[in-house]
Parts: sequence; C-alpha cells; structure tokens
Amino acid sequence: MGLNPRSADAQFMERALELAWKGYGWVHPNPHVGCVVVKDGRIVGEGFHRSFGGPHAEVHALRAAGARSRGATLYVNLEPCVHHGKTPPCTDAIVQSGIASVVVACSDPNPLVAGQGLRRLRHSGIHVRVGVLRQQAEEVNERFLHFHRTGMPFVGLKWAQTLDGFIADVRGRSRWITSEPSRRMAHVLRGGYDAVLVGAGTVLADDPRLTVRHISARQPVRVVLDGRLLVTGSEKVFNTRNARTILLTQGRFLRRPSSVIRLLMRRGVDILGMEGGAHFSPRDVIKTLGVEGVTSVLVEGGPATAAAFLDTSVWDKAHIFVSATLLGGGTSAAPLAKPRPVAVPLKLHHTAAMPMEHGEMLIEGYRQRP
Amino acid sequence: MGLNPRSADAQFMERALELAWKGYGWVHPNPHVGCVVVKDGRIVGEGFHRSFGGPHAEVHALRAAGARSRGATLYVNLEPCVHHGKTPPCTDAIVQSGIASVVVACSDPNPLVAGQGLRRLRHSGIHVRVGVLRQQAEEVNERFLHFHRTGMPFVGLKWAQTLDGFIADVRGRSRWITSEPSRRMAHVLRGGYDAVLVGAGTVLADDPRLTVRHISARQPVRVVLDGRLLVTGSEKVFNTRNARTILLTQGRFLRRPSSVIRLLMRRGVDILGMEGGAHFSPRDVIKTLGVEGVTSVLVEGGPATAAAFLDTSVWDKAHIFVSATLLGGGTSAAPLAKPRPVAVPLKLHHTAAMPMEHGEMLIEGYRQRP
Repeated sequence: MGLNPRSADAQFMERALELAWKGYGWVHPNPHVGCVVVKDGRIVGEGFHRSFGGPHAEVHALRAAGARSRGATLYVNLEPCVHHGKTPPCTDAIVQSGIASVVVACSDPNPLVAGQGLRRLRHSGIHVRVGVLRQQAEEVNERFLHFHRTGMPFVGLKWAQTLDGFIADVRGRSRWITSEPSRRMAHVLRGGYDAVLVGAGTVLADDPRLTVRHISARQPVRVVLDGRLLVTGSEKVFNTRNARTILLTQGRFLRRPSSVIRLLMRRGVDILGMEGGAHFSPRDVIKTLGVEGVTSVLVEGGPATAAAFLDTSVWDKAHIFVSATLLGGGTSAAPLAKPRPVAVPLKLHHTAAMPMEHGEMLIEGYRQRP
Repeated sequence: MGLNPRSADAQFMERALELAWKGYGWVHPNPHVGCVVVKDGRIVGEGFHRSFGGPHAEVHALRAAGARSRGATLYVNLEPCVHHGKTPPCTDAIVQSGIASVVVACSDPNPLVAGQGLRRLRHSGIHVRVGVLRQQAEEVNERFLHFHRTGMPFVGLKWAQTLDGFIADVRGRSRWITSEPSRRMAHVLRGGYDAVLVGAGTVLADDPRLTVRHISARQPVRVVLDGRLLVTGSEKVFNTRNARTILLTQGRFLRRPSSVIRLLMRRGVDILGMEGGAHFSPRDVIKTLGVEGVTSVLVEGGPATAAAFLDTSVWDKAHIFVSATLLGGGTSAAPLAKPRPVAVPLKLHHTAAMPMEHGEMLIEGYRQRP
C-alpha cells in the first residue's frame, strides 16, 4: 500500500480494522471485529465488538446507521456469525437492515460459522466480497484464527533482556532490565492473552501477581507449572479473588493431597494433575489448557520454561523486550537444552521492532511466517 | 523539525549536510564537508569534499557558482579553513568570490582553524552565522570532532550477534550470524574508520583480511593486538600490499626479534612494542594509535577484546548487528571481566535501530550522549 492510492474498499476496511483493534484487551477469546456501514461513499455507521459476550460489531454499526443501512455496503473484517451464541446471529441483523452489499476481509474458521455466514448472506440476495485486506485481518485475530484452525491455544513467549541477551545479572537480580514504559507495555501484552504461564521457579524467586495492572483489560488466567510441587501455596499468584489460577502439577500429588495442595484448594486454585513425571511436555501443557477453555497463553518465564517451549517448537510468537544496556554476564534469556548450531539457528519470522522509551525495543517475531 | 515548516537556512544547510555525507568512506581523517551557494533563494553552486587531500567543498561550490557567487550566501557544515594544508585556505577563496554571507553549522575544533576561519570572514566584511543544524553537523563529523577535541582516536565497537546475545555457537562457529546484506553493511562501517582492530585470537580463529570489500572506500589500517605474539606471521591480515598493518605486541619481543617478528617485518608490517605485560590497557593502545596518525578505530573483536574496551570505558560508539535468530547457548558477545549488576548496567545512549534485511537490525549507541 504505502503511498499508492488505495481503493475505497481498502480504505473502509482499514477503518473497520482500526475499530476492531479497539476491542483489544476486552473481547478475547472472541475475535476482534470492527464494522462500518457506507452509503453513497460516506460512512453512516460504525461499530466494534467491545467486550466478551457483548453485542457484535455489525449490530453496533447497523444501529448507528439506522434507516440509512438500506441499500448500503457493510465492511467487516471477519465473516458475520450465523449462530445464536450470547447474542443473536449478525447475518439476520444484516439481512433485516436491507444492506445491499457486504465486504469481508477474512472468513471465520470457527466451525459454528465457517462459510455459512457468507452463504446465508448470498442466499438472501446480498452481494458478498471476501479478501479485502485479508493479511491485516489475519493479524488482528491471529490468536482466535490459530485456535479455531489448529485446535491448539496460541502460544506467546515474552521476556525482557539486555542487548547482550541477559534476563538477570550474575547474582540473579532481574529488577529491572527495562524501564517503566516497557513494563507497562508488558501489561498490554498480558491483557491480550487468555492466560499467562510461569514456572514454579519464577513464582518462588519473584512472587509475581501476574495480573494486568496499569492498563485496563480482562484479567488473564494465571497458570503455574510446578511438576515438583515446590510452591508453598501462600504466593501472591494464588490469590484468586481477582483472577483464576491454575496449578499444573503431577497427578500423584493429587491422589494424596498434602497441606500445600489443601491450602491451594482452599484459596480457590484449580489444580490439574499431569502424568509423565516432574518435567511436563510443553505440548501436553498447552493441550490441557486448551481443554480448560484457554485459547491463547503468554509464557512469561523463567528462562528454563521459555527454553522448554522453544526446544519443543511449542510457540507461535515471541515478544522480546530489549534494553539499551549490556551486563556482560548473567542469566541467558532462553538457554536451550540443545543449543543450535550457527548454521541452523532458531529463526524468528516476520519480525517487527517497535521502539520504546529510553532506547528500548519490543521485538516480535513468529515461529512460522503467518 | 519533523513536519513543521523549516527555515530556508535549515533547508539549505540540510542540503549541505547531504552533500557532506557523500564523501563518506573517502575523506577521513579529513572532515565530511558539503557546501551550497545560494543566490536569490536558489542554489547556484554545490560541492563536497570528495577525497582525502582533494579540494575542499567550498572550492567545488564556488567554482560551480562562478560569477553568481557575488553577493550570494554560502552554506557549509563546518567552519572554513584558514591554513595552507594540502590545498589553499577556503576563507581566501570565499573572500575573493564576493560572497556576502556565510552560514556555518559548527565551528572547527582543529587548532589550525578553531574560530580563525570565522574571524577572517568577519574581518573581510562578510556576514557570518553559526549554529544552523549544529546537531546534524556534529553527527556527520563525530569522529573528526572527537579526535580534535580530545586528542584521542574515536573508538567504535562492532560485533554481530544473535538476538539472544551470542556471536558464535557452542562449538565456536560464527559463520554466519548475519546474512550477506548486513555483512556488506559491516564493510561500509569499516570504510568510515581510519583503522580496524582485532585481537590475535580472531586472527588465528578466522584469518580475516580486514579489508574493505564489496563497496568502494579507503582501506583502513589493520591493527592486531597480540601481547603474547601468538600469530605465525603468515595470516592474511599481514599482507600489506593493499593496506597498512600494525601489530602491537610486547616490547620485549622486539628487543630479540624471533623468526615471526622477522617474517612480519619482511612482509611490511609495522610492529609497535608496548610495555606492561601481555594484556595491554585499551587506553594505551588507543593513545599509541593516535600517535600513529589514527583518528578513529573500529574494534571488531573478538569478545575478549570487545569486553576489554567496554570494561575500561574506552569506546565511543557501538555498532551491533543483531540477527533475527536464537542459538540458546554459545559465546557471549562481550563477556565483561566484571559483569555489571542489573541496577548499574553499561548503558548505550542515543541509540538508533536500523532495520536490515531478513529481520536483522543494526543497533548503534554511544557511551555518552553526544
């Protein structure tokens, strides 16, 4: 695109995408959806999906447009739904409004929709076009689309490191590698995932709350991997008043509950038993979380946990905060069990570097080209 | 600046700076200088310093302007010279041309000029203004200005690392961390320094030529630090047909020349003896190179050498190529003798990240805010 003149379709879809992003932090695990209604080349109604379970974008936009919807064109970044979920189907609302034409960026892989929305519209005599700004539409719903296409939660990895690759100094201190604006951005990331996950080592070392703070967004489910049941149960992450916490540990610890398990249960922690010893397979962990209704999870450390996910290729996107500092030694960000040879490194695809304050950067990249 | 309307002065100076950059790779250790002559709001002559020892920018611009110089304004990023060097003084040419007004971005700290150029012009009745786009003018001549202000060569550090901070894999292999476009850019960097420097370890491990290839620029002096005289003398860097090579070793090795020393001398290598044992102080090394006429030096490794310069704060600018890959283990980029605590890291100031191909980046930063 760039400076080239864009089609009117692309311009209106861009606005729909802009609106879709406004739901960030509040709509997941639903998709981000934005919608504009256009009549005689002008926008007469706009809307976006604002919160999980709330009205869909199309409904907001059609309400705003009112009678002007008749004969108008509706732009929406995701195929409209046909099923009665928490709200009535959007296709019905579109048909009833008298919309003449619908432009969709990408179809919905959710088996409850999956092409049926487009068919329903076409059968009602509405002209339908699909594929305008598809790539941007894939991006705004990368987690939702991934989960519905693969059946597996989307896995993000996040860490903060120095430019020379350390997440803690030689004495293990990690507060703070990055400055406050980057740490606030880390909360923004957290607010876009269904769940955040850490190993027991991080819980014991840092006692993090793992809640979203400083910004407003849904609280993610907190997941703690603790194959050896090393936690005491009194850590902050097990305060379930504000957010759900899941502890994954070995099944054998549940068969004869210790005082720690009993404390965790009293505090309202969901304890899931896994088989296969103290070291879980990251794939099993992710599958288990999928069954628990988690569609996306942000792995926040520590280094051994990040490395386990990298080693087994169980990750989709890396979010790496990089400070403008060197330590010259310390704890490496992701010490792989099998370090890669220089000829066959672990590659990040489709990377983007966002400048943060104080010379810091957020570097993001994918395991596979999306 | 940004989108704000800029003054005509700033616009013409911007053009002078653009011209100054065109000399990159060819004029050092002379300064980068660009010049435009403006009459009635239009550029009537342009010029830049094209090569070390060649005519100065002002002379090129005045020649191009010819008779139109009379009553015109001359823009130049550095104070015009007053001394007879390889060429006659520019101030004389400016006065003779009938220029009415001179706009200068920054004054010249070279003691042979240092304010005298401006005085000479003013005494001749020419109106002089100084300071337009001073910051950009400091940048284009950062090495020249540093050397003349401090008497010490400007020290760059350059390495190529993975995102997780490794310059080689666990088996020590470093070819290649970055891809070909980044490696070509490394030659561009090399072509902007008077000298490049490596430790003997790098010479023995990689046998690099350390010449500028793939681009056209002056060949830097190659400097090898070898306190223990570990080289054999047959390495490629000691081929002095295309470029000068300096070996710094302990003075005692010169007092009784070994066969290696004799071979190096036959090959035309300049061998300098240092006192103080096998490990030189980076400051002594840089001072010695300054005496040898080197005004800027790019330290290209290996990690122990880079770390020695970082540990002793003998560096001015870091150029770090970062790949979009992880190795999960290997040789760290700059393992400091005294790793820093997280609260007091080694900071890079005024950083800039340039995107390279394949998701790679060149991150540059300064030891001190320039």
